[in-house]
Amino acid sequence: MSTESIPLTKAAEDEKETGRTEAFSDGVFAIAITLLILEVRVPHLEEGGQSLLAALGELWPSYLAYLISFLTIAVMWVNHHHLFRHIKRIDNRLLFLNSLLLMTITFVNFSTALLAEYIGKPEQQTATLVYTGTMVVNAILFNVLWRHASINHRLLGKDADMAQVKAITDQYWYGPVLYTVAFVLAFVSIGLSLALQFGLAVFFGLTGSSK
Amino acid sequence: MSTESIPLTKAAEDEKETGRTEAFSDGVFAIAITLLILEVRVPHLEEGGQSLLAALGELWPSYLAYLISFLTIAVMWVNHHHLFRHIKRIDNRLLFLNSLLLMTITFVNFSTALLAEYIGKPEQQTATLVYTGTMVVNAILFNVLWRHASINHRLLGKDADMAQVKAITDQYWYGPVLYTVAFVLAFVSIGLSLALQFGLAVFFGLTGSSK
Amino acid sequence: MSTESIPLTKAAEDEKETGRTEAFSDGVFAIAITLLILEVRVPHLEEGGQSLLAALGELWPSYLAYLISFLTIAVMWVNHHHLFRHIKRIDNRLLFLNSLLLMTITFVNFSTALLAEYIGKPEQQTATLVYTGTMVVNAILFNVLWRHASINHRLLGKDADMAQVKAITDQYWYGPVLYTVAFVLAFVSIGLSLALQFGLAVFFGLTGSSK
Amino acid sequence: MSTESIPLTKAAEDEKETGRTEAFSDGVFAIAITLLILEVRVPHLEEGGQSLLAALGELWPSYLAYLISFLTIAVMWVNHHHLFRHIKRIDNRLLFLNSLLLMTITFVNFSTALLAEYIGKPEQQTATLVYTGTMVVNAILFNVLWRHASINHRLLGKDADMAQVKAITDQYWYGPVLYTVAFVLAFVSIGLSLALQFGLAVFFGLTGSSK
Repeated sequence: MSTESIPLTKAAEDEKETGRTEAFSDGVFAIAITLLILEVRVPHLEEGGQSLLAALGELWPSYLAYLISFLTIAVMWVNHHHLFRHIKRIDNRLLFLNSLLLMTITFVNFSTALLAEYIGKPEQQTATLVYTGTMVVNAILFNVLWRHASINHRLLGKDADMAQVKAITDQYWYGPVLYTVAFVLAFVSIGLSLALQFGLAVFFGLTGSSK
Repeated sequence: MSTESIPLTKAAEDEKETGRTEAFSDGVFAIAITLLILEVRVPHLEEGGQSLLAALGELWPSYLAYLISFLTIAVMWVNHHHLFRHIKRIDNRLLFLNSLLLMTITFVNFSTALLAEYIGKPEQQTATLVYTGTMVVNAILFNVLWRHASINHRLLGKDADMAQVKAITDQYWYGPVLYTVAFVLAFVSIGLSLALQFGLAVFFGLTGSSK
Repeated sequence: MSTESIPLTKAAEDEKETGRTEAFSDGVFAIAITLLILEVRVPHLEEGGQSLLAALGELWPSYLAYLISFLTIAVMWVNHHHLFRHIKRIDNRLLFLNSLLLMTITFVNFSTALLAEYIGKPEQQTATLVYTGTMVVNAILFNVLWRHASINHRLLGKDADMAQVKAITDQYWYGPVLYTVAFVLAFVSIGLSLALQFGLAVFFGLTGSSK
Repeated sequence: MSTESIPLTKAAEDEKETGRTEAFSDGVFAIAITLLILEVRVPHLEEGGQSLLAALGELWPSYLAYLISFLTIAVMWVNHHHLFRHIKRIDNRLLFLNSLLLMTITFVNFSTALLAEYIGKPEQQTATLVYTGTMVVNAILFNVLWRHASINHRLLGKDADMAQVKAITDQYWYGPVLYTVAFVLAFVSIGLSLALQFGLAVFFGLTGSSK
């Protein structure tokens, strides 16, 4: 591509490519977050059994898993935009890392269903570890993607604000660390681990994680 | 961010951010409204039992729930756009409130399935209360989000039409009030409560709720 | 809205509103067309029973329903764009009619699953009538929406090509007529009715219906 | 359409139409890739049976099918964009071919579920052949679509880079050939066939297939 002769066109094309990657990612985020509700199943009552109200009450693990996952994916979506506010070009490796990142986000639908099924049952620890492990991998991939894009300003705009770029690099390490804490915590207490993850989603949701 | 030195870029960036929030929200609306059909299940006939026509006729609670929810989410989508026609900036709190709002919209998929399952059965009142309660919470969140954005013109454009902004503020209170009426009505008559909600969707759909 | 004082802004805003309606509709089309595959179910083999190949062969009603519906929704999507190439403004009634139109399109997911379940079984006629009836209603709604928008050029651009507008008006009547023929044909022969609908999708797909 | 008198408007309209086709296709890609996770089912434990960890381990065919299909659809999405970077106009035949292409992509959801269900079971060869066959047909359709668009520069921009166009034409033939090899390989070894397909997705993902 003759980038030297038509630099403006190249920049415009780069922006279009980046915009498409964002739009595609947004689509996956929007679908993944909406599909979460499919895991909250309508209870079927047996004749002479419990009331619907009681049956709905027993669904609390589903509501809890739904709530935490919905807020967490919403925060991930915001984070994704924070990164792409600075990323102005894409390369194949970025697209590949972004695919892996999106894969972990759609995987949340599975781990949420697993959590909803097993909280309050004997195997709840295994379910919580799988759930939290998905979040750890996701948080690591956010960092890998950002490092790839930001090292030597590889895929950033020329006018990228150095301070902001450094701020993101510094702040995004909290993700893997805090989710690893939640992972380890699950060995001690399922409740504390999930409370931490709920807290992280609300905290990052209300404060933003890179502003 | 040096907003003083480059106000135009800041405004353009704000608009881009707001546009993305709208696009993401639109995605969730579009998916939530389309997933509704999954709750209308193909009947499986037993040999020597009723005809398919009769079985399809017995699905009327599913059609009814589908119809009301589809029109209601369509109206919510229009309302969401009415708000974002005036909102020109986003902050973390708006994103968080918007996430909660979208959560109630995806939750409609669950409450619709619940309603479809239990209309005409002994537990229909509980199902209707959950369904209508979802609408009440959604209507309240629309107001909270708008108050957050519009108080002192916090997130509105500089050229926001004061009269229009006030009109929205005045009109959006009808939502929580009318859905609370529908909620209370469900204690008296399931039919009247659902008729009111169907009527609201058609009325707001045909007249617009903030024009 | 002070349209007189700032006509340009009004036009730009109209276009933005119309664009959003198109984007939302596109989302619903894309989701509805993709969800169709969920109705093709993986066969579960019983031990000592038929081979997987034979079981996959027996799924032909699912493939057939999937094929016809996929192509038909694709043609509807093209038709929707043909209309919105000329529609430059929206009003509440258009939004309402568009919602009804989208409702029939998502309903195709149900009628496709119904068709897939009952082709080749005793109740196949009822299933085909429901399927074809959905198409008839959809085709009528396309006409109602277009009439609403185009009569007296109500919602068209000032520079709308009269000849093209008239061509659409003339051509879109074929839809309800041809699908009504398919509906009546289903009383005589399921195969002929479905063959006609498959043929219509391919024909309109290859020739375009308003060019 | 009076293309001679208003060439600029025509070009702008062409670009808008092409952009919509891309956006619609992106929607289908995003939904298809996200729905893949629905095929990984939460295991239900029997009392006194295996542990959840063991049950999750037995899901490896689901993870494997999910992984290969996710990366493959991601690569297809990138390929689709490579083509539409050069395609500047659409005609009905392109829309039709694009619909067929999207149909094979949504069909991957079915063949992935089939593969996940039957890997490691007696009928795994049939499942792998259906899965790989879907990829072969998809790869052929990519070529047919591109030939239609690029022959005599039918639907390309006037400034299309001849070298790049030829490079795509040359490279896209690898797809059908390599997937046919994977198809034939499935008769010899399921493992080798799937390993090849996984390798292709990673290789094309990391290198890009038309750059």
